[in-house]
Amino acid sequence: MADFYNICLDIGGTKVLGAIFDKNDKIIYRLKKKTKEGGDNSDSVEKVIISVVEEMINESGINKKDVRAIGVGAPGVVDSGKGVVLFSPNLPWRNYDIKTPIEKKFGVPFMIGNDVNVGVLGEYKYGAARGFKNVVGFFVGTGMGGGLILNGKLFTGNEFKAAEYGHMILDPEGPLCNCGQRGCLEAFSSKKGMSAYILQQASRGRETMLAENIENGVFKSKALKKALAANDEVTVEAVDRACHYLAVATGNMINTISPDVVIYGGGVIEAVGDIFLKKILKEVDKYCMPSIRPTVKLKTAELGDDSVIYGALSMIK
Amino acid sequence: MADFYNICLDIGGTKVLGAIFDKNDKIIYRLKKKTKEGGDNSDSVEKVIISVVEEMINESGINKKDVRAIGVGAPGVVDSGKGVVLFSPNLPWRNYDIKTPIEKKFGVPFMIGNDVNVGVLGEYKYGAARGFKNVVGFFVGTGMGGGLILNGKLFTGNEFKAAEYGHMILDPEGPLCNCGQRGCLEAFSSKKGMSAYILQQASRGRETMLAENIENGVFKSKALKKALAANDEVTVEAVDRACHYLAVATGNMINTISPDVVIYGGGVIEAVGDIFLKKILKEVDKYCMPSIRPTVKLKTAELGDDSVIYGALSMIK
Repeated sequence: MADFYNICLDIGGTKVLGAIFDKNDKIIYRLKKKTKEGGDNSDSVEKVIISVVEEMINESGINKKDVRAIGVGAPGVVDSGKGVVLFSPNLPWRNYDIKTPIEKKFGVPFMIGNDVNVGVLGEYKYGAARGFKNVVGFFVGTGMGGGLILNGKLFTGNEFKAAEYGHMILDPEGPLCNCGQRGCLEAFSSKKGMSAYILQQASRGRETMLAENIENGVFKSKALKKALAANDEVTVEAVDRACHYLAVATGNMINTISPDVVIYGGGVIEAVGDIFLKKILKEVDKYCMPSIRPTVKLKTAELGDDSVIYGALSMIK
Repeated sequence: MADFYNICLDIGGTKVLGAIFDKNDKIIYRLKKKTKEGGDNSDSVEKVIISVVEEMINESGINKKDVRAIGVGAPGVVDSGKGVVLFSPNLPWRNYDIKTPIEKKFGVPFMIGNDVNVGVLGEYKYGAARGFKNVVGFFVGTGMGGGLILNGKLFTGNEFKAAEYGHMILDPEGPLCNCGQRGCLEAFSSKKGMSAYILQQASRGRETMLAENIENGVFKSKALKKALAANDEVTVEAVDRACHYLAVATGNMINTISPDVVIYGGGVIEAVGDIFLKKILKEVDKYCMPSIRPTVKLKTAELGDDSVIYGALSMIK
C-alpha cells in the first residue's frame, strides 16, 4: 500500500493544534500556533486552516498528493454532515460553509465537528473509552464541554446541539452563567466558574495566590496546579466546589444515560485530573442510583491535548 | 390474511391494564383489574399474567390459536432482550425470568420492558411523538419515570437502566427522595413529592382540601384536579413547585440530548396535563440554551392510560 497521510486540526478560540498522521495512525508531524484575531471577518479562520495545512505539508516534507483527508474539531454548533459551522461562541462563524472551500482548495474529503464531541470520539477510538459502547464525556476547560457516544456512535441530537452538559442547571438560584442561565455546571466547575469564585473571595480580602494569575476571567491550568500543590486555601475551596458539582452532574448523567464509562478531559484534567477524579469519586455515589452506579466506570482522558486531533482522525477514517 | 391478535398488558404495583389488539391495531377487548398483593412470592405475579391473559382470551371469545404475541410493560429494571425482570421496586421480582414460563404456557413470543420506557415507545409509535426521531419522555405518577427514544429506537443504556430522569438531582440540599438522594426531580414533582409538600404545609396549620385525600403518602390524580379547580392555595403552590422543577429538568434534558420533542405523560398529566404544560412552558426558556430551545417541541402525551399497552404492541410487532 502506498504511503498516505491524514491531516487533523484542533481549532480553538486562541490556538490551533495540528497533526499529520501516517497510514498507521502515527503522528509524524505536529504544529501549534496562535489563532489570528479573527475580528468579524468570517473567512479569516478559513484562511488560517488553509495556511496551517499548507505550512504543515511544506514543513513536514510530505507530498501534497499523498494527503487523503482533512479533519477538524472546532468550537460551536457544527453540522458535521454538511461541513457547516452553524454558530461558534468564540469564532466569527455563522452558518458558515467551511467544507466547500477547503475541499476545493485541497481536492480531498474534509470533515468538521464540534471540538468536544470530536475529543470524546477520540477518547472512544484511541483513548480511555476504548472498548466501551456508551460514553459520557465532560471536558473541563475555560468553559465546560460535553460529548456523548451512544451505541458506539457520536450522538449529536437534533441540529447537532446535544451534550451541552456544561449548561445543566444544578442550582436554579446559583451564580449567573455566561449563557444567561443561573447555576449551570459551567458556572461552578469550569475555569471561568472557579476563577469567579476565587476573585469573589479575593475581593472579600482573603489571600489567594491564584487571584493574581487570572486574566480575562480565567486562570491557566498550570497556575491552578501550582496553587493546589501549595495548598492555597481559596483554590482548594474552588476545586472542592467544582468537583462537588461535577459529581452531581455525573450522577445526573449516569441516571439519565446509564453509560458504561464517564470520561473527564480538557486542560484542567490534563493538569490536575488525578485530584479532580479522586474528589469526584468520593462524592458521586451520593448522586446516582445505587442500582446503576456499579455498572459505570469513571476515568480521566488518556490523550491529553491530543483528544481532538485523534477524534478528527476517527471522523475521516 | 387470517385474523390474528396481540395481547398487551400494563402491569403496575396496584393494577393491571390489558388490551387485545386485532391485526389492524384496533383494541377489540379491554380488561382492568387490581394486582393481587404479591407478598414476596415471586411467581405470584407470573400467575397474575397467565390468569389475566387466559381471562381475556375467554371473555373476548377469540381463538387462543389466533394469538400471535404477548407484550408487557412492568415497573423496574427489565432486560428486554432476555425477558428478565432484574429488579422492581414495587413487585417481588429479582432476576426473574418471566419470558420462559409465559412462552411455554402460551406458545407465542413474549416481550417485556420497563413500563415508562414502553409508554414513551407507545407515544412515539402511536401518540404525541409520532414522526419525531429523538424523544425525551417524563411520566408523572406516584413516582417520576422517564423514557428515551434516540434515532428512532428505545435507548436503555448499559444494563437497561437509562432514563431515570426522576432521580436527576436539581438541588443537592433539597428534600430527601425515596431513592436515598436529596433534591431529585421525583422529590419535587411526582405525586409523592407534591403530597409531601402538602402534608408539610398542613402540619404547619395551613388549610388544604388535598391533605385529607392523601393515603400512603400519595393523592389520587382526580383529587388533585378537584383541588386545582377549587384554587386550593397549598395545592397550587405544590403544583407550581412541581412544574418549576419539571421545567428545570426539561431544560437539562434539552441541553443534554437536544431532542426533537419532550413528552409529558402519566396519571397526573392525564388529569391536569394542560395546567402542567402551561406552567412548564412559561418557565422552560430560562432553563435551556437559547440556541437549542427553538428546535424542540413540548407536548402532553396523547394515549393517556393506554401509552404502555400501545408501547407493548410496538415491542411485539
